[in-house]
Amino acid sequence: MVAQLVLVRHGESTANRNNEFTGWTDVPLTPKGRQQAKQVGQKLAEHQILFNQVHTSYLQRAITTANIILFEMNQSWLPMTKTWRLNERHYGALRGLNKDLARKEYGFEAVALWRRSYTAVPTLLTKVTPDRRYPNGLEPYGESLKMASDRLLPYWTQVIEPALKAGKNQLIVAHGSSLRALVKYLEHISDEDIDGLEIGNGEPISYTFDDEFNMSHRHYL
Amino acid sequence: MVAQLVLVRHGESTANRNNEFTGWTDVPLTPKGRQQAKQVGQKLAEHQILFNQVHTSYLQRAITTANIILFEMNQSWLPMTKTWRLNERHYGALRGLNKDLARKEYGFEAVALWRRSYTAVPTLLTKVTPDRRYPNGLEPYGESLKMASDRLLPYWTQVIEPALKAGKNQLIVAHGSSLRALVKYLEHISDEDIDGLEIGNGEPISYTFDDEFNMSHRHYL
Repeated sequence: MVAQLVLVRHGESTANRNNEFTGWTDVPLTPKGRQQAKQVGQKLAEHQILFNQVHTSYLQRAITTANIILFEMNQSWLPMTKTWRLNERHYGALRGLNKDLARKEYGFEAVALWRRSYTAVPTLLTKVTPDRRYPNGLEPYGESLKMASDRLLPYWTQVIEPALKAGKNQLIVAHGSSLRALVKYLEHISDEDIDGLEIGNGEPISYTFDDEFNMSHRHYL
Repeated sequence: MVAQLVLVRHGESTANRNNEFTGWTDVPLTPKGRQQAKQVGQKLAEHQILFNQVHTSYLQRAITTANIILFEMNQSWLPMTKTWRLNERHYGALRGLNKDLARKEYGFEAVALWRRSYTAVPTLLTKVTPDRRYPNGLEPYGESLKMASDRLLPYWTQVIEPALKAGKNQLIVAHGSSLRALVKYLEHISDEDIDGLEIGNGEPISYTFDDEFNMSHRHYL
């Protein structure tokens, strides 16, 4: 039984528009971001993909994108699971900071390293505001891309992989860096090469899995 | 531990606007319906209710209403379960039919009986178009309000009641008749008296439950 996996990065958020580091800051989509989500939904509807399950993060820019996509596909009734494991990489002290200002404050080279390196951890937050969706200190103070990958992958192996093996088509609506971490894992991309991969707002990526769970090449819909 | 239950009927749908029987027909909200949903969300936000779980039907007018409410409350991340058990009463052969035309075709008295009686079953559909969200002949050919209640209540007793007993605030976004059936059960309203209860689009009903699971009176927010 062949199953399809589609990865979608959320539409443009207010933080994207304002050139800010975002991470776990819960910013809304811009009108352009909603439009991008609508276009992705229409594109997926044209491909006549019948999804079985939808997965998204705890962040509204991804959830709203997923809701708009399902509405456009006339598949609003699909079960949708929201999980903190699909959240964007947590950008530590850089969250909410304009990228130019961050370079000014922390230096061009440090910021470049935090963005490009797989293992570099940005300056950590000194404290985290309590948020009931992240109980018991679940929210990190900052993450490298590897740390984001480490908390994301259990969700892949425990939830999404078994569903694909059962022949169920899966849609994941998440974030630039959390999706990069997933693509790195799926395609065995090296720590060095992952820096070259950019996932755009609203450019769906598709993989198919055959009976033996062999994965196709990455395909842009 | 006190828990709160809020019931919301979806905003105006295109079928409401066109004075049609709807049932399991999956019609969208009108712009006015989206506005009503937004106002409900703002109202619930003003009451500062922190929900723990959201429940809705398989029908997009309810799902979209729930999505809009959560967005306005800044609680989009909440787990939302969609179930056919919360679907509207299935109106049989009347689905999609203008109410005046239905009276012409089936007679004023028959239509009045189907609408008012707790047990009267409308003329059944002769066939049901296959829909993958209702596998294995799950979709009925028509329902009395009692039949709708009978398939709704297991969801109440198995899912919502235990959650309330655990002190978790619950939001249900559903339909005029499915919510009437639930209110009838909760308030022990007789088969005769339930006819008098109308639940408006976008008028949230609230109940609270105390430590011994004693329910408050119905309260309109």
